[in-house]
Order: sequence, then structure tokens, then C-alpha cells
Amino acid sequence: MENIFLKIINREIPAHIIYEDDLVIAFLDIMPVNKGHTLVVPKKHFVNILDGDPDILAHMMKISQKIAQAQVKELGADGFNLIVNNGVAGGQEVMHSHFHVVPRFAGDNSYQKPSHVECNKEEFEEIKEKLAGVMS
Amino acid sequence: MENIFLKIINREIPAHIIYEDDLVIAFLDIMPVNKGHTLVVPKKHFVNILDGDPDILAHMMKISQKIAQAQVKELGADGFNLIVNNGVAGGQEVMHSHFHVVPRFAGDNSYQKPSHVECNKEEFEEIKEKLAGVMS
Repeated sequence: MENIFLKIINREIPAHIIYEDDLVIAFLDIMPVNKGHTLVVPKKHFVNILDGDPDILAHMMKISQKIAQAQVKELGADGFNLIVNNGVAGGQEVMHSHFHVVPRFAGDNSYQKPSHVECNKEEFEEIKEKLAGVMS
Repeated sequence: MENIFLKIINREIPAHIIYEDDLVIAFLDIMPVNKGHTLVVPKKHFVNILDGDPDILAHMMKISQKIAQAQVKELGADGFNLIVNNGVAGGQEVMHSHFHVVPRFAGDNSYQKPSHVECNKEEFEEIKEKLAGVMS
């Protein structure tokens, strides 16, 4: 499958690039949720957070922070969302890792609140044991 | 305003804690979007990514990765979302930084696709110049 982000990294197709270093590139999303919506993309290919190099992901986080601060300062954003969709079930559409940094403006209603599921006390305990068991 | 996350950190109220180290704590969200929905929270107070210590945010990213991997391995998640809401305009409700790590299951429809805005060529250029100008 065509990797459009690698084509942007390799300058084979144009993009509105706002930042670049040895590890990452950041450019405006061509289908913005709000004006200023930016993608932070690793230059080295990995699919998403599940298989990503932890140090590169940590760097992507730091660059996302700087972009969010720029969105507030330069675009007058009132807040922002950092959103990372992982896997088709998580809404991922391009199979090369990317962080969405989306400026938000008061009352913009860009995102709807998610639904919730019921979870009883026994289920909470069981899930906690399962996750804690592999985290320690 | 009451900071419920500090109360969890200080063991003043209970939570289903799945991970803890010197910098962060992670526990199950009491109002889960899906079963296994986890919050990653810094022990040191800051409001959100805008004012957070970059190194702590980078560490929160690395812990979020491990939690997502655990959700896939232990809960059979097909994917996940990392979501960070920053500021009231960004949907932030507790004013102590937290990352949502939400397991996703094929066809769960937990989140609706966001709306998009129109952005013309001149606007893209103008936004690019503004953001790039403070990122370099």
C-alpha cells in the first residue's frame, strides 16, 4: 500500500511542513478538523504506538507539545487535542505512525463525546489484575 | 477545586491502580469508553500538555505504550486510542494532566468521526508560516 507520509518525507509530494529534524517531520493535515491541525510523523517507518521505538515516540510527544504551544500562541487556540489512532479498530487510516495535534476553539463542537460502557466491580478487579500483571 | 487525581495518588480515595513509579500513576477510568480504559497521570501537578515538564510527558508516552500493549495482549483489544484533551475548549474535565489509553474492539463505534473545516490554499500557507516561524 502506498505510504503517503514517506512520500512527503522524501519530498515526492508537497506538504505544508512546519517542523523537521532527524527523527520527525510535522505538517498540516490536508483534511483539518480545525485550521492548524498538524500531524507529527516519524521519519523511520513504524505502524503505530504498538510497534514504535519508545524513544522516538517520546520525541514525538515533545514536538507535539511545542506545536500545541505554537497553536495557542500563533493561532489563538483555546485548547487542543492530542489524538493517536492505532489499528483499524482504533480508526487508523494511514499505516505509518502519526500524532494528530488539533487546535480547539471555544464552542467549536469538533468532536462529540464518546459513549461509555457499564463495568461492574468484579470486571474492574479482573481487568486491573490482568493489566497490572504485565505492567510490573 | 478538588483534585481527584491527587487524592488517588495520595491513597485518600481508592482506584484500580495498574502501574506506578516515581513519576506517574496509571489506573482504570471509572467511566470507561471501553473496558480497560486507563488513565496515565503525573504525580507532580501540572494542568495539561501546555504547561507540563517535557521529560515527564515523554515518560507518560512510554508508559502509555506499555499499557496499550497490555490491553492488546491481556484484553484482546484490536487497537486503541491515545487521547489527551487540553483545556476546557479541548474537552478537559479534570484540571490535572491525564492521558486516556482506550482499548478498541472491531466495530465498537465508541467514537464518532470528527467534522472537518474548509481551508483554502492561502490559509494553509498563512498557518504554515505562523507555526513554522515559532518552531524553528
